[in-house]
Amino acid sequence: MQATRECIRNMTGYVPGEAALSPDIVKLNQNENRYPPSPRVAEAMRRAADSLHLYPDSTSTALREAAAAVHSVRPEQVMATNGSDEMLRILFHTYCDPGDAAVSFYPSYTYNNTLAAMYGVRHRLIDFEGEFALPRSPDLAGAKLVFLCNPNAPTGTVFPESEVRRLVEAAPESVVVIDEAYADFSGQTSIPLLRDYGNVVVVRTFSKSHSLAGLRVGLGFANAPLLAEMEKVRDYYNLDRAAQAGAEAALRDGEWLKRTTGQIIATRERTLRELRARGFRVYDSGANFLLLRLESPERAERLWRELRDRKILVRYFNNRLIADCVRVSVGTDGDMDAFLAAVPGGTA
Amino acid sequence: MQATRECIRNMTGYVPGEAALSPDIVKLNQNENRYPPSPRVAEAMRRAADSLHLYPDSTSTALREAAAAVHSVRPEQVMATNGSDEMLRILFHTYCDPGDAAVSFYPSYTYNNTLAAMYGVRHRLIDFEGEFALPRSPDLAGAKLVFLCNPNAPTGTVFPESEVRRLVEAAPESVVVIDEAYADFSGQTSIPLLRDYGNVVVVRTFSKSHSLAGLRVGLGFANAPLLAEMEKVRDYYNLDRAAQAGAEAALRDGEWLKRTTGQIIATRERTLRELRARGFRVYDSGANFLLLRLESPERAERLWRELRDRKILVRYFNNRLIADCVRVSVGTDGDMDAFLAAVPGGTA
Repeated sequence: MQATRECIRNMTGYVPGEAALSPDIVKLNQNENRYPPSPRVAEAMRRAADSLHLYPDSTSTALREAAAAVHSVRPEQVMATNGSDEMLRILFHTYCDPGDAAVSFYPSYTYNNTLAAMYGVRHRLIDFEGEFALPRSPDLAGAKLVFLCNPNAPTGTVFPESEVRRLVEAAPESVVVIDEAYADFSGQTSIPLLRDYGNVVVVRTFSKSHSLAGLRVGLGFANAPLLAEMEKVRDYYNLDRAAQAGAEAALRDGEWLKRTTGQIIATRERTLRELRARGFRVYDSGANFLLLRLESPERAERLWRELRDRKILVRYFNNRLIADCVRVSVGTDGDMDAFLAAVPGGTA
Repeated sequence: MQATRECIRNMTGYVPGEAALSPDIVKLNQNENRYPPSPRVAEAMRRAADSLHLYPDSTSTALREAAAAVHSVRPEQVMATNGSDEMLRILFHTYCDPGDAAVSFYPSYTYNNTLAAMYGVRHRLIDFEGEFALPRSPDLAGAKLVFLCNPNAPTGTVFPESEVRRLVEAAPESVVVIDEAYADFSGQTSIPLLRDYGNVVVVRTFSKSHSLAGLRVGLGFANAPLLAEMEKVRDYYNLDRAAQAGAEAALRDGEWLKRTTGQIIATRERTLRELRARGFRVYDSGANFLLLRLESPERAERLWRELRDRKILVRYFNNRLIADCVRVSVGTDGDMDAFLAAVPGGTA
C-alpha cells in the first residue's frame, strides 16, 4: 500500500466558516466584504481574458509594482501569492523542517494550525493575556516562525507599533510574521518596519478590504534576502492573468478602497455603540467584524443558532477562551440593522 | 539570523522557457496553444466576476462534476488545482518525507526536479532507452512516487496502455503519477486505469489543449483513499471563482476542444512530413510540439539562435541526451509556415 506521510495521515483538514446555504442569507460569518470590488476589477479581468492562452507573468510584476507604490516599498520587497494562505504556506515551507517549532498567539487565525500540521511543525500557542493583550515576555525560544495577526482575528484587537517592535526585537532568530489581513480597517501597518528589521514579513490579502475573497490574491512584504529564498518555493505560475490584473486594478483604485472601508468602519462603530447600549459586551475592533461575549457558551451557541434560524449567519467557534463569544462580520448598514433586529433586546 | 531550511538554501528555482520579448514574436517555446480558448470561457468568467466578494467553493464542485462527466469517473475521484503544478506539489507533500526517494524518467518535465529539491527528496532520474523507450525493468525500489509523462515532454513519445500498466504493476508500493498534460493531442488516457489500480494518479492541465495557460487550472484523478489524504494538503481556497468557472466552461465545450486540437494535430503531422522531407530527424509526437535532432549540440543551439533572430522562439535545453535537439511548439499553420521558411533548407 502507498504510505501517506505520518504527519499528513494524522492531521485533519481546515474547517472554515460555512458557505451560505441559500441566496437570501445575510452572510456575516467569514468577514467577507458586503460591498462589491471596484468596477475597474471586472474591466481589467475582461481585458486579461484576451490572452489566457499564454502563461502569465510568473512574478506578477505589474501587481507588485502597484503594491510597492501604494505601500512605499520597492517591488523587490513584494511577493504576490494565490491568497495570503499561499504566502503563509510558503513561510512554513521555507523556514520549518519537520519537528521545528513555530509560535502563534491564542486565540487567532486557525489556518496556521492546519499549515503547522501539514509541515509536521510543533505549533506553540501562547494565550493572550486577559482580554487579548500581547504577553510581556512570551516564550519564543527556538521558534522558526512567530505569527501575530494585527488586527487580530477573531478578537479585532489592534496592537500598537511599539508592541509589534518589542515582539520583533524579542525574536531576532525567528521570522516574525505580521498578518495584516484586516489592516485596512485599522489604518495601521507594520510595513515600514522593513526599514528597521531583517526578520519581519508582513502578509496582506485582497479578500477583505478589496472585496476579492473570490479572486485569491495575497501579498507578502519582506526584505530581499528573505524573499529570495521564499521565491524558490512559490508555485512558479501561482497567479493567473485575471487575478493579477484584477488585484492590480483594485490596488490602483484607492478612492474605492477608502470609500468602502470608510463606510464599513462607520457601520462597525455604530453597531458597536448600539450593542453596548443594549448591554452587550463587545470588544473594540480594528477589523471588519465584532466579537461579542455572552454570559456563557450555551448562550453564545444559542444566539448563533437563533440568528441562523432567521437567516443571519455569524460565527461561533466553540474554542477555549472564546466559547462564550460570537463573531459577526460588519456588512452594510442594512445587514447590521437585520442583525440588530434579530439579537435579543432587539427592536424587531 | 533567520535560518532558511538547508534543502531550500541549496536549491535553485525553476527555469521555464522565456516569455515573449515583443508582441510580434512567433512564440513556439512553451507549448502554449496558439488558438484562443472557447468563447464560453470569457463569458463564464464575466459572470463569476459578479460574486468576487465571496469566497469560492473550496472544492470546485461544478468543475469537478464537469471533469467527471467528460472522463467517466465520479466527482470524488477528481481534485481541481491551481495549475497541474499544484497537483504535482501536493503529491510530493503527501507522500515524501525529506530524504525519501522519487523516480522520474529522463529526459522529461523538469519541474519535478524543482519540486523534489523543494521537498528534500532524492529524485532518481532513469534514462529512457534508446530513442525514448520505457526501460523494461527500471529500478523503482523504495520510490514513494514514480512519474511518467504520457505523452512525454520534450520528446512527444506516446506510451501504449500495456506499458503504463506494466509500470503501475511494477511499483505496487509507490504512487504512480501519469502526467497527461498533452494527452488531448494523442487521444490516449490512463484515467480508466483507476478502475484496476489503487496506486495511480492521472494529472491533467488546461494549459495546453484548452488554451488556458494563463488561467492556472489542473486536475488530478485518483481513487478516493488517495484523494482524501491529498485533500488535506491542498491550499484550502486554491482556485478562484473566475478560474473555476472558466475551466468548467472550457470542459463543457467539447466541440471547441475537438476542433482546435484536431487542427493542431493536422498541422503537427504536416510539419513533421515537411521537416522529414527536408532530411530533418524528427520524432513522432502525440503532443503539440515536435522534437528535432540536429547533427550536434552546436548546430542545435545555432538553429535556436538563428530562429530567435528572426523572431521565432523555440526551446533549446542544453541538457544531457537532448543537447543536439530543439523543441518547437505546434502553432497555427501560419506559425509553422514561418518556422519552416526560417529553418535551413527552407523556401524563404
